[in-house]
Amino acid sequence: MSAPPLENMTMNGLQGRFISFEGTEGVGKTTSIEALCARLQAANIDYVRTREPGGSPFAERLRDILLDPATAISDDTELLLMFAARCDHMQQVIIPALKRGTWVICDRFTDSTIAYQGFGRADGDTAVLAKIESLITQFIPQLPELTLWLDLPVLEGMARAGKRGAADRFEQQATAFFTRVHEGFTVLAANHPERICRIEASGSTDDVSARLWQVVQARFDISPDKS
Amino acid sequence: MSAPPLENMTMNGLQGRFISFEGTEGVGKTTSIEALCARLQAANIDYVRTREPGGSPFAERLRDILLDPATAISDDTELLLMFAARCDHMQQVIIPALKRGTWVICDRFTDSTIAYQGFGRADGDTAVLAKIESLITQFIPQLPELTLWLDLPVLEGMARAGKRGAADRFEQQATAFFTRVHEGFTVLAANHPERICRIEASGSTDDVSARLWQVVQARFDISPDKS
Repeated sequence: MSAPPLENMTMNGLQGRFISFEGTEGVGKTTSIEALCARLQAANIDYVRTREPGGSPFAERLRDILLDPATAISDDTELLLMFAARCDHMQQVIIPALKRGTWVICDRFTDSTIAYQGFGRADGDTAVLAKIESLITQFIPQLPELTLWLDLPVLEGMARAGKRGAADRFEQQATAFFTRVHEGFTVLAANHPERICRIEASGSTDDVSARLWQVVQARFDISPDKS
Repeated sequence: MSAPPLENMTMNGLQGRFISFEGTEGVGKTTSIEALCARLQAANIDYVRTREPGGSPFAERLRDILLDPATAISDDTELLLMFAARCDHMQQVIIPALKRGTWVICDRFTDSTIAYQGFGRADGDTAVLAKIESLITQFIPQLPELTLWLDLPVLEGMARAGKRGAADRFEQQATAFFTRVHEGFTVLAANHPERICRIEASGSTDDVSARLWQVVQARFDISPDKS
């Protein structure tokens, strides 16, 4: 019924690569994603740029519910909705793209659920983390091959985020919350060094996007002259 | 954080009882539920009558999506949405009622998911059943104390259901589907004899509701003169 694991598909010669971007508010994910996409385009690499929660028409409907400050649901209900959205996104957008050899550049994925719901909301509660892990294991057949974690001190990121428009439901939360989220990303990066790459997100936009591109080039063996 | 298991709460003197009704289409659930509720009222027992999918305002929104024939989502996405709805229903309606000593009479619960998604849709696929079991274990802190399974030959039930209005998404499915669903209920009843009680659903409405009431009286020690 669910899609088979994709591990073998990349080994079978499929060229689609799955890259996620992670980080707390204000670290510059959007700018960095735009810069990476521009580089991929210049290198003639087909890509799909997508995001979570959302990314497919049905998942975007669920995103509207999830980010609406008027939505009053429990943490468990939210978690299940989040994975319903992710499941649809996976099956409608991510897997078809990877199958046809297109790269997938995704703004947030499972690590954000662990960092925000598991650490930010539940403060690393092992029962909550076990629930999230179980949902990932049962319903998400393919994790990103490379996760770019944009890292910035929490207060610096919050100050940057504060300059933007109306705060959504997550951005309304306090500094203590984002400190726990940051701890979550730190733990994840320590546990998955083969997948998660910490990128220093301070400095100019050009500096950060140059660092990112270097990592992507090295990981996927893109020759410098193609960039 | 999710609600703690309720097992100890009934032992702690709470009087709320949790009863679910199950069965394939056309077995007469609605009529039987109405008859039971009338008996409870006559016996001065407070009850809440509810249903799945749905039962709380948020879960009813998800019900509309789940039963809409235009909804094109995968089995996994549907399963997660179903449990998001169930989780909200549990936390907003069922648990608060049981806590204040009110009985909960629920039209369908987890057994329907196992029978319809696990057997009807997935034909008893062990991977799908494991997913459902894992969602129940992780997210549903309290199963019904008594499940009344109204049993009728599949074709008889379908003939009865056919007399009703426009068929919804589930009712559009074929006889083979309902035969597998019926097999699911049969397996469930065999595996949980302490909870699931098979009720012969043929015969007159009065006969069936008398059978049901006898089971409920005996299980919850309601003296005959209260009925």
